[in-house]
Amino acid sequence: MTTTDTTTRVLSSYLQGAWWAPESGVPVRDAATGELVAYVGADGVDLAGAIDYARSVGQAALGELTFHQRALVLKAVAGHLNSITDELYALSDRTGATRRDSVIDIDGGIGVLFTYGSKGRRELPNSTVYVDGAPENLARDGSFGGQHIYSRVPGVAFQVNAFNFPVWGMLEKFAPAFLAGVPSIVKPATPTAFVTEACVRAIIDSGLLPEGSLQLITGSVRGFLDQLDVRDKVSFTGSASTALALSGHPHVLEIGVDLNCETDSLNAAILGQDAEPDTAEFTAFVASVVTEMTAKAGQKCTAIRRVIVPRDRMDAVTAAIGARLEQRVVLGDPRADGVTMGPLASLEQLAEVQKNVAALLAGGGEIAWGSLDRPEVLHADGTVAPAPDGAFMSPVLLRFDDSDAAAVHDIEAFGPVASLIGYDSVADAVRLANRGGGSLVATIASIDQDAVATLFGGIAPFHGRVLVLDGSVARTSTGHGSPVPHLVHGGPGRAGGGEELGGIRSVLHYMQRTAVQGSPAVLTALTEQWRAGAPSVADAEHPFRKPLSRLRIGDAVASEAREITLEDIGHFAEFTGDTFYAHTDEEAAAANPFFPGRVAHGYLLLSFAAGLFVDPAPGPVLANYGLEHLRFITPVSPGDSVRVTLTAKQITPRETDEYGEVRWDAVLTNQNDEIVASYDVLTLVAKE
Amino acid sequence: MTTTDTTTRVLSSYLQGAWWAPESGVPVRDAATGELVAYVGADGVDLAGAIDYARSVGQAALGELTFHQRALVLKAVAGHLNSITDELYALSDRTGATRRDSVIDIDGGIGVLFTYGSKGRRELPNSTVYVDGAPENLARDGSFGGQHIYSRVPGVAFQVNAFNFPVWGMLEKFAPAFLAGVPSIVKPATPTAFVTEACVRAIIDSGLLPEGSLQLITGSVRGFLDQLDVRDKVSFTGSASTALALSGHPHVLEIGVDLNCETDSLNAAILGQDAEPDTAEFTAFVASVVTEMTAKAGQKCTAIRRVIVPRDRMDAVTAAIGARLEQRVVLGDPRADGVTMGPLASLEQLAEVQKNVAALLAGGGEIAWGSLDRPEVLHADGTVAPAPDGAFMSPVLLRFDDSDAAAVHDIEAFGPVASLIGYDSVADAVRLANRGGGSLVATIASIDQDAVATLFGGIAPFHGRVLVLDGSVARTSTGHGSPVPHLVHGGPGRAGGGEELGGIRSVLHYMQRTAVQGSPAVLTALTEQWRAGAPSVADAEHPFRKPLSRLRIGDAVASEAREITLEDIGHFAEFTGDTFYAHTDEEAAAANPFFPGRVAHGYLLLSFAAGLFVDPAPGPVLANYGLEHLRFITPVSPGDSVRVTLTAKQITPRETDEYGEVRWDAVLTNQNDEIVASYDVLTLVAKE
Repeated sequence: MTTTDTTTRVLSSYLQGAWWAPESGVPVRDAATGELVAYVGADGVDLAGAIDYARSVGQAALGELTFHQRALVLKAVAGHLNSITDELYALSDRTGATRRDSVIDIDGGIGVLFTYGSKGRRELPNSTVYVDGAPENLARDGSFGGQHIYSRVPGVAFQVNAFNFPVWGMLEKFAPAFLAGVPSIVKPATPTAFVTEACVRAIIDSGLLPEGSLQLITGSVRGFLDQLDVRDKVSFTGSASTALALSGHPHVLEIGVDLNCETDSLNAAILGQDAEPDTAEFTAFVASVVTEMTAKAGQKCTAIRRVIVPRDRMDAVTAAIGARLEQRVVLGDPRADGVTMGPLASLEQLAEVQKNVAALLAGGGEIAWGSLDRPEVLHADGTVAPAPDGAFMSPVLLRFDDSDAAAVHDIEAFGPVASLIGYDSVADAVRLANRGGGSLVATIASIDQDAVATLFGGIAPFHGRVLVLDGSVARTSTGHGSPVPHLVHGGPGRAGGGEELGGIRSVLHYMQRTAVQGSPAVLTALTEQWRAGAPSVADAEHPFRKPLSRLRIGDAVASEAREITLEDIGHFAEFTGDTFYAHTDEEAAAANPFFPGRVAHGYLLLSFAAGLFVDPAPGPVLANYGLEHLRFITPVSPGDSVRVTLTAKQITPRETDEYGEVRWDAVLTNQNDEIVASYDVLTLVAKE
Repeated sequence: MTTTDTTTRVLSSYLQGAWWAPESGVPVRDAATGELVAYVGADGVDLAGAIDYARSVGQAALGELTFHQRALVLKAVAGHLNSITDELYALSDRTGATRRDSVIDIDGGIGVLFTYGSKGRRELPNSTVYVDGAPENLARDGSFGGQHIYSRVPGVAFQVNAFNFPVWGMLEKFAPAFLAGVPSIVKPATPTAFVTEACVRAIIDSGLLPEGSLQLITGSVRGFLDQLDVRDKVSFTGSASTALALSGHPHVLEIGVDLNCETDSLNAAILGQDAEPDTAEFTAFVASVVTEMTAKAGQKCTAIRRVIVPRDRMDAVTAAIGARLEQRVVLGDPRADGVTMGPLASLEQLAEVQKNVAALLAGGGEIAWGSLDRPEVLHADGTVAPAPDGAFMSPVLLRFDDSDAAAVHDIEAFGPVASLIGYDSVADAVRLANRGGGSLVATIASIDQDAVATLFGGIAPFHGRVLVLDGSVARTSTGHGSPVPHLVHGGPGRAGGGEELGGIRSVLHYMQRTAVQGSPAVLTALTEQWRAGAPSVADAEHPFRKPLSRLRIGDAVASEAREITLEDIGHFAEFTGDTFYAHTDEEAAAANPFFPGRVAHGYLLLSFAAGLFVDPAPGPVLANYGLEHLRFITPVSPGDSVRVTLTAKQITPRETDEYGEVRWDAVLTNQNDEIVASYDVLTLVAKE
């Protein structure tokens, strides 16, 4: 099994700060030509050492960085990879990927880094603790409360990837773990590990990553779960059978290693009853099915496997898919000009897919387009001929007369293969889609909003993602098969039950949510957000005079009181044009269930409050850029007075600017100390 | 094993709308006296029928109700149970619970219903779909985007409870499932099932619940997982060994039944180094340990098992705990006056606890207070004597000289038993606490904020909840051992890896998160929240003239433009007192990095916008009660003009009032159609 010639290298692993390779490995071959590319193995790898290194060196290095600093590292890595894509494309060619496929993998992966680089700074504090949800008060007098906090797990993120996306698959797991502050050990699949290795090498060589935050193991590592415990996280993408073996491991069941699985699923595309052959929805649907059958030669866990159409449209859909395949598909070596679909990843994959197509045929399917014969393909030299050493197969559209045939809902051929079935009613379409037992994604092609609502409502609980395709989005849709970093990727049941991506959601998968209870002072300290009842400091210096270097959470200003007169209200109404009766008509106002009579405008109170707390001369406070959570609580009548207390609540210095955001807690009270209004004032404040 | 006399009833189950009991069951005895209470069994139960009934009848009935309507049902059930607590207390006595214990269980359970009744209306829409997080734009032209939606799973919530909290344990699982719209099948533990049965009977008899939303199975049901699939949810509270068996079931691993486990854990209480014997923290710590040892006779999954104190304070803590136990504990029949600690739930539990204490002793522990001898106890008749048929044991404080003894971190005696160990440094305390391998809760008793921050940071990833105890909260703290419905209950690793409660968080456990992608129109329809780019209707009638009965999402008003003059800005500054230099000093304003020169106040723009969109005469819009997500985007210079578009974004009629909330999307644009500001305006609008 493991043989090594002397001219072809054994892929290296990057472990404990150094590159390492065993003496031998299994051969990996070019998918189109069968040429030897590399040997891959990990015999003798020091797995325990790598895990310990991540938990110690990696954790320590990442612990030095805030979310924003980590996000900027991801952005820098993305920029660096963007400069070497040609090198990665050339390797990707050898996996059978066309250039379009490579862009999905390589540029798609870089895009994930950019998205996390951006979201990490926009949606997380410049800190290491993430506060989840609103504060909870647990005592009548406000002296005891609770809040939820996420903090990173203190172990390693062990990431097992599938062969189909050697770059994206790694980066979509690595980015959120890194942002959370958890070091990764990446384990790519053997057939395409040479692309992952090149990408990791480029990242490591860039020197951008903190030491220990990324390690790579190329080659098979059995028993890695034996080394992991409750501190660690495992993310797995791959087959349901491997996922099953992992999830039954004692360290998962007994010790509580957290395991997140994403397995391929029998994703559906449903053509709406309104989508007649001449509609934009029909056209977009057919284009989507063909794209999903042929992109990556159908080797995508998100690919459409079940094409569910109104029974009366089965012939039209078959014809349209066939015509588009005929017109679009040029099968061949990705290095040949004009090729639109490459081979499968390996001859082993080809055999596996053909075996599953045979099972689908035995289960009631018929071939409606394509063939299982080994095709002639376009070679890199421009000739068209069979390719005995290349893992090529034709796209195959199957058709089942019996929509309930078990095979179509159970057997996945992980290649350019989809199966067409018919439905009789919307409820039937829902039922058939859900027979997949849980899927990553489904497409609904319809412009009929009622049908969309019914279909979506019916299938949503079985799906991690649902794309609604109509003419208005046909051009701008990101596509059925493409997870986007903003939205979750994963699904229940057959799809593995896990979740990845989804913006910050997946960062939180690498963190533990803990409810903390205590005094306002304790909660302020642990959440890094000031909370009512916690100490505040209103000293001689107005906090607007303090740059970020001196401003502290709890720094406050308490204003004098200002009386609100009837003239103020009348004048404000006239000046602004806001002559709402509650401010202008005593009798009508008194008839309103919420007002005692004419009351001050909310916006007048806000404006006066700003007049009360503002410090007018130029200083570190540069701008008030917004406001959050404003609630008007007690109406203000003419003759009442208001005062405002402003307390620095959260301080977020920017890494890339000479200023940062400061959120202030603002409370307006009246002459009876009743709360009139509360809100957060958002400002930009200079660092010095 | 299963014998039945003719005078004692077999407990009933409530299934498919009727009460049912088998012929026989196992005997359940009074914990204090050994008297026969009931037989419990489920031989011959139609489990498949009950599950099917939940999935069909229960799902349909709950599907008729919105979140708010379900919340009101929970509130009504809570009110009803509040009126029959005496009846439940009397039964609870027979489980060995003192009145204080019963209050935790029964009133605590009712409190969960009230909390969900309240949070369900404050934090969820009056609808059936929950939108998660912010909209994501996925196309440059805004024509394609995404959003996350939670929708209820279409199956049953199968809930397996522990014996220690027969009421709270049921209600804390039932309430969030019900609020989510998922019917429950409740399976209480045999020894205390008679209390659960009485509570369910009261709920069913009240007629408040929709048909099929709650079923009860008293008695052992093996193989229930064989009947469940990807539609269903299982929540389990109980032993780690049972949790392990469930989590290894093929329907969990292969089909994807979602299983949430809460097992007991070896929870720690850490005394800070600052907490000398004369401090409030020391006193509160000792009181908390004694409470946790004796409440429910220590039969709480959250009880303190490991008392971790500075090594130099081991003697002082031992003495203080001993003195308080001496002073506070009166062991006896809960029906006897003055009893503060009852028996364990059964003689079987007693044997189990004694076995585990023996193992702790063999593992290096010594008894520092208490004894394993069967104690004399106070009987209901006022006598003090042994109770051979009662499951009584004395509190036992163990002490380990070797803090790293495996036994103290591994073996749980689920009774009035805690173990004391010493630590040498803060890092050592963290390490010892985390040796529990994941816990439900820990207490940190300290007033030293730096130490608290270090301890919390170190133990948070291993804990579901952390309580920081100091003198300021000693009186108002809800307690180490009491989960509150507002905060999550559960923990990683040894604690089972699950999460319950936590307000709306646990409602979402009964729902599937799905990312939906499509056009703004589709996303508006499916999320029930208007989104930029979706159709809007600005017809002749101002939307402020439409009551909720006629107002629709997308109803809009687009104002005329208003020019902002330098005089306006100067006047506003003078009137409000907001003389910030950006509005009053051309030169200084121009030097600010964000402003071209003097600009209009943000609050002036808000006020003018209100003047532009308001419809002044009395009508269905009753009040503007707040504002969210305000961002000032483009500065407005003198001579610019602004207009505002207001679009109905979300409509939330109240169930209990003649009005509801309407959230309006507000966008201010300038003469160049640049966005000046965007925000949500929150109003109260009459139904008619």
